[in-house]
Amino acid sequence: MPDNNPSFVLEKAGQVKFEDRPVPEVKSPHDVIVEVKYTGICGSDVHYWTTGAIGQFVVRAPMVLGHESSGIIHSVGSAVSLSPGDHVAMEPGVPCRRCTRCKEGHYNLCADMAFAATPPYDGTLARYYCLPEDFCYKLPEGMSLEEGALVEPLAVAVHIVKQGGVKPGDSVVVFGAGPVGLLCCAVAKAFGASKIVTVDINEERLAFAQKFAATAAFRSQKESVEESAARLIKECDLGDGADVIIDASGAEVCIQTAVHALRVGGTYVQGGMGKPEITWPIVAMCTKELNVKGSFRYSSGDYKLAVDLVSSGKIDVKELITGRVKFEEAEQAFRDVKAGKGIKILIEGPSS
Amino acid sequence: MPDNNPSFVLEKAGQVKFEDRPVPEVKSPHDVIVEVKYTGICGSDVHYWTTGAIGQFVVRAPMVLGHESSGIIHSVGSAVSLSPGDHVAMEPGVPCRRCTRCKEGHYNLCADMAFAATPPYDGTLARYYCLPEDFCYKLPEGMSLEEGALVEPLAVAVHIVKQGGVKPGDSVVVFGAGPVGLLCCAVAKAFGASKIVTVDINEERLAFAQKFAATAAFRSQKESVEESAARLIKECDLGDGADVIIDASGAEVCIQTAVHALRVGGTYVQGGMGKPEITWPIVAMCTKELNVKGSFRYSSGDYKLAVDLVSSGKIDVKELITGRVKFEEAEQAFRDVKAGKGIKILIEGPSS
Amino acid sequence: MPDNNPSFVLEKAGQVKFEDRPVPEVKSPHDVIVEVKYTGICGSDVHYWTTGAIGQFVVRAPMVLGHESSGIIHSVGSAVSLSPGDHVAMEPGVPCRRCTRCKEGHYNLCADMAFAATPPYDGTLARYYCLPEDFCYKLPEGMSLEEGALVEPLAVAVHIVKQGGVKPGDSVVVFGAGPVGLLCCAVAKAFGASKIVTVDINEERLAFAQKFAATAAFRSQKESVEESAARLIKECDLGDGADVIIDASGAEVCIQTAVHALRVGGTYVQGGMGKPEITWPIVAMCTKELNVKGSFRYSSGDYKLAVDLVSSGKIDVKELITGRVKFEEAEQAFRDVKAGKGIKILIEGPSS
Amino acid sequence: MPDNNPSFVLEKAGQVKFEDRPVPEVKSPHDVIVEVKYTGICGSDVHYWTTGAIGQFVVRAPMVLGHESSGIIHSVGSAVSLSPGDHVAMEPGVPCRRCTRCKEGHYNLCADMAFAATPPYDGTLARYYCLPEDFCYKLPEGMSLEEGALVEPLAVAVHIVKQGGVKPGDSVVVFGAGPVGLLCCAVAKAFGASKIVTVDINEERLAFAQKFAATAAFRSQKESVEESAARLIKECDLGDGADVIIDASGAEVCIQTAVHALRVGGTYVQGGMGKPEITWPIVAMCTKELNVKGSFRYSSGDYKLAVDLVSSGKIDVKELITGRVKFEEAEQAFRDVKAGKGIKILIEGPSS
Repeated sequence: MPDNNPSFVLEKAGQVKFEDRPVPEVKSPHDVIVEVKYTGICGSDVHYWTTGAIGQFVVRAPMVLGHESSGIIHSVGSAVSLSPGDHVAMEPGVPCRRCTRCKEGHYNLCADMAFAATPPYDGTLARYYCLPEDFCYKLPEGMSLEEGALVEPLAVAVHIVKQGGVKPGDSVVVFGAGPVGLLCCAVAKAFGASKIVTVDINEERLAFAQKFAATAAFRSQKESVEESAARLIKECDLGDGADVIIDASGAEVCIQTAVHALRVGGTYVQGGMGKPEITWPIVAMCTKELNVKGSFRYSSGDYKLAVDLVSSGKIDVKELITGRVKFEEAEQAFRDVKAGKGIKILIEGPSS
Repeated sequence: MPDNNPSFVLEKAGQVKFEDRPVPEVKSPHDVIVEVKYTGICGSDVHYWTTGAIGQFVVRAPMVLGHESSGIIHSVGSAVSLSPGDHVAMEPGVPCRRCTRCKEGHYNLCADMAFAATPPYDGTLARYYCLPEDFCYKLPEGMSLEEGALVEPLAVAVHIVKQGGVKPGDSVVVFGAGPVGLLCCAVAKAFGASKIVTVDINEERLAFAQKFAATAAFRSQKESVEESAARLIKECDLGDGADVIIDASGAEVCIQTAVHALRVGGTYVQGGMGKPEITWPIVAMCTKELNVKGSFRYSSGDYKLAVDLVSSGKIDVKELITGRVKFEEAEQAFRDVKAGKGIKILIEGPSS
Repeated sequence: MPDNNPSFVLEKAGQVKFEDRPVPEVKSPHDVIVEVKYTGICGSDVHYWTTGAIGQFVVRAPMVLGHESSGIIHSVGSAVSLSPGDHVAMEPGVPCRRCTRCKEGHYNLCADMAFAATPPYDGTLARYYCLPEDFCYKLPEGMSLEEGALVEPLAVAVHIVKQGGVKPGDSVVVFGAGPVGLLCCAVAKAFGASKIVTVDINEERLAFAQKFAATAAFRSQKESVEESAARLIKECDLGDGADVIIDASGAEVCIQTAVHALRVGGTYVQGGMGKPEITWPIVAMCTKELNVKGSFRYSSGDYKLAVDLVSSGKIDVKELITGRVKFEEAEQAFRDVKAGKGIKILIEGPSS
Repeated sequence: MPDNNPSFVLEKAGQVKFEDRPVPEVKSPHDVIVEVKYTGICGSDVHYWTTGAIGQFVVRAPMVLGHESSGIIHSVGSAVSLSPGDHVAMEPGVPCRRCTRCKEGHYNLCADMAFAATPPYDGTLARYYCLPEDFCYKLPEGMSLEEGALVEPLAVAVHIVKQGGVKPGDSVVVFGAGPVGLLCCAVAKAFGASKIVTVDINEERLAFAQKFAATAAFRSQKESVEESAARLIKECDLGDGADVIIDASGAEVCIQTAVHALRVGGTYVQGGMGKPEITWPIVAMCTKELNVKGSFRYSSGDYKLAVDLVSSGKIDVKELITGRVKFEEAEQAFRDVKAGKGIKILIEGPSS
């Protein structure tokens, strides 16, 4: 068994390096050491790489990148049920388990969350990573480690769609056809939505989204948000407006359009991140009695459901994988993601 | 029994008159005719009077004003249980009862609502008013007709607090100490909130709010919204932030402060109406996973609960009544409300 | 257009006849007259036929039978949007729209419900039937009138599964593989359940249920309910117990087994009707903190969703149709249903 | 500081003794050692004492009794915020924090719960007891340690009332006027219920319940459950039936009466424990579409709310304290509780 721990480290904004970190050891009886096999790259990873910070989170010391990972159990603590050799999807954030939010079932809102590749916590782009067993999800027979690495963004989408309260028969509009938007379409479908409209400005993405999960596509144009909303409702046959709208774009114009395209009493979920402040039609929100929700990472049951959706064949995440690179080529992969190449690129674990 | 129907009519923006309208008759077996006894004045009445419109609702023909009323049953249809002489609070909006929103329990969102003093529907500032029986709430022994006229704004507050999901033990902040804000404080208290903070810029109002229902008061100052939020949390001992914040002010700065003063996972309700669009801290809303809700009028169960809260003595709405005027002095009362005099002025029904 | 109204009438227990009833006329501007085309037979119809009563509902005067119907709009009131010739599924119960239950969104619990073929209200086994427009659901392009007649039992199943709060990823056990049990399996699948176990004593039914919608089957045996529950959990790989269990059998032993086969915090729904009283393991129910719910007919949104599930192809109700008979053969069809022949028999409307 | 740890130990059914146990030490940085000051006696304590078992929980080795306690922080782990000398209410069950139930916010349903005085875990009738800090609730200024010992049964009542979904304006019936029933009445009142009916066969208890919290009392008689339900509804003016009924008696006849006394769509909560199986009117439960729930101990937020209800003066638990005894007299106190003397007897901590 290799006893080194090659890691892909962000030194500071724009500057990465490979480094051999100490091999982690099992300390708690509930912990496991996972040998990481695949890691996807997320927009937030790229953002740390380019700017060294996201909001209040600032990289002040070298930090291993990566948090969308799958791997193989390497060693286990004394109280663990998983066995070395088991394939797992790795949930990359461990909450305190003791605060009010944790105990009420919203551990994603824990103020003491230790989240991979969020300063000051190291990420998963290394050979080995230590996790409590209950944040590892055994991949069922027939589900590959590559699929396992896609569980993280799928869990993000599961959480968003749950926040939206999507029910069978609902009409759902998803702004943005990037990885999270695509997965939101697929999850909304799995939740029984009868209409799923993908909205983007890129025709190619719209075509893919329809092939992947959406039942209709709408292309934004230069027009007022009221006109755009009216056209969306009419062209996509949304009756009095959509039941649920999800923004996975972060674009101000999408968010505004959504308020006008929802039915009275409809639900809006903010999934994407853009400008910290936008102009918001609050009176329309108020008199239509909309439900507006944020969505942050994932929480109780989301990872498990994401694994189920893949292993049952309801969502084929493999279609989103547009590239695989060796661990040594991680920096080039980051450059490709920044350049908008492909949908989801996976980085292999370090070769033994 | 008087057989005329004096009414207080808005002809167009800024121009009112008294007019003798036809006495309404019972047509449906479920209808009653109420002899109106007291009518409060609401900001929306004043807004129609001064501008002739609220948003898409434009006064295009003379319209009777008023919608916060109580009265005495005058005559009844064949299928009615109430009896002439019964004292009632009058719910002033009648929905279609047939659409999806009505049938799912959200009749306030009915697109075919006929709402008193909302064009083109006449209001209640008249001697007689026709309503379906199920929108009349018999006042229990010991509850006065004056209190009955306050049920309407109280029902608005009940709906807002329900939208906020206020639970026993919650900390609730209410921006704005006008009639609706005051009633929100009182309803939050009746719902078991353990901390109720009133926020305003007017010291006198803050003092009244604390005497009426709030457990603490906070005075806004010239400072950044982040600073204001931090000061609010600290001075009012709100821990990690408030559980629920209600805006009954419509002021942009309050709405922004609220987002920063809520705890993660907290709930915000927009109760007040101000500028149609504001600058909104959407990333903070998203990452704190806030629940943001509009509140529009009142719906299933709200009026009944408002009557219960008054008749049980949990909320003393009489404290809000700062004046009573004769029907003939209605215009002067509107002027006083516009000038910000008093909290709630009641107009008596036309004298027989 | 035929101007007679042949009807299939229950005179008293065990005694039926064909009778020409007056052709109904549109009275309210919201009403339609439907020419009935297909009517399924339900256990309750057969129960009235054989015994003349169900619980407190006693047939005291001749009553037209039937309530699972589809048809073609024949004539319309002045305020109706549907047009003569439109194909519709007919929701057979019209509530008062005025009581607390109606206004809070639970119109199935209305005490003044007028329900087809429930004394004293006539049913749909006639040429013509009058309904308010909002209880007729237009069949989308491609959905047949035969499928339309199956919407009623499907709506029953939709309501049961909603009562169960079935969510994506849940494990669901359905006791009883008759029409309602089969449809519950299908609806649970459409709601995203990952495991759907059908339970029955009849191997043939179990085989059909698995072909139709269930992912696993379990055959009850002579054993204690605790043993049966343990075997069910083990054989069907239900972990700590099922998330949701639905009884569509009405059998005491099934209901008892369910309590032991649910996980802590799981949900039980009583869908089937059997003995009025049973022996119930209340301490197990209490300490496992189960949610136990009744389900009665259907309410807000159920019929619409049932139509969507059929028209979208998610549920193929045609597989349940095992026979079609002429109107004149209605009595024989009742005999066949009583004898347990087939799954669902449809009676055609009277020939013109 | 005393360095011995006198404990009140159940050796086997019917046999107790005082024993000096090892003084516990802080092991985890999150743990505290509490010096126990007051402990109430619960029916379950008495049941273990008399029979040596409750259901599947059997006393196989000597076990310290007691779980309703308050105390003073004696020593703290390195990560603890509380300080020695702080007065706290002690939540006596510590869950695993890792399983699905824990992570979804229902830690009371954790299969690996370590609960005081439930075999094999020792209870709190000792000088010292070790707890994680987050299961200790600091008593606010003005709240006594005696009140702190009542927080446990109050948290049981809070959980029951939450399970009942009691809302402002609801009518609530509570069967049984023992400690938990009384506290359920008080909590229902604090939750805003407008009618709270206490039901018992003992006139003295009914009188106390009305003085304490109930708004009406109903005395059960020898009559059919249907008659009893009808009389309850009529005498207590419950309209179409109660919104919520809580059983805190465990008596079969009460449970049956409740089903008939609830309104359609009402909620029933099983709080009391009696015979493991009863005869249950399941068809009435089904057609009335009742919500039936178990309630087991307390979970997220219950203890904190119980402390708030006492410290805010909303519930005066001191009224329930009918006796205080020295630690050395613990066995006599158990005898008195078994004999039904008083409402709540507190045992003082061992004198130093």
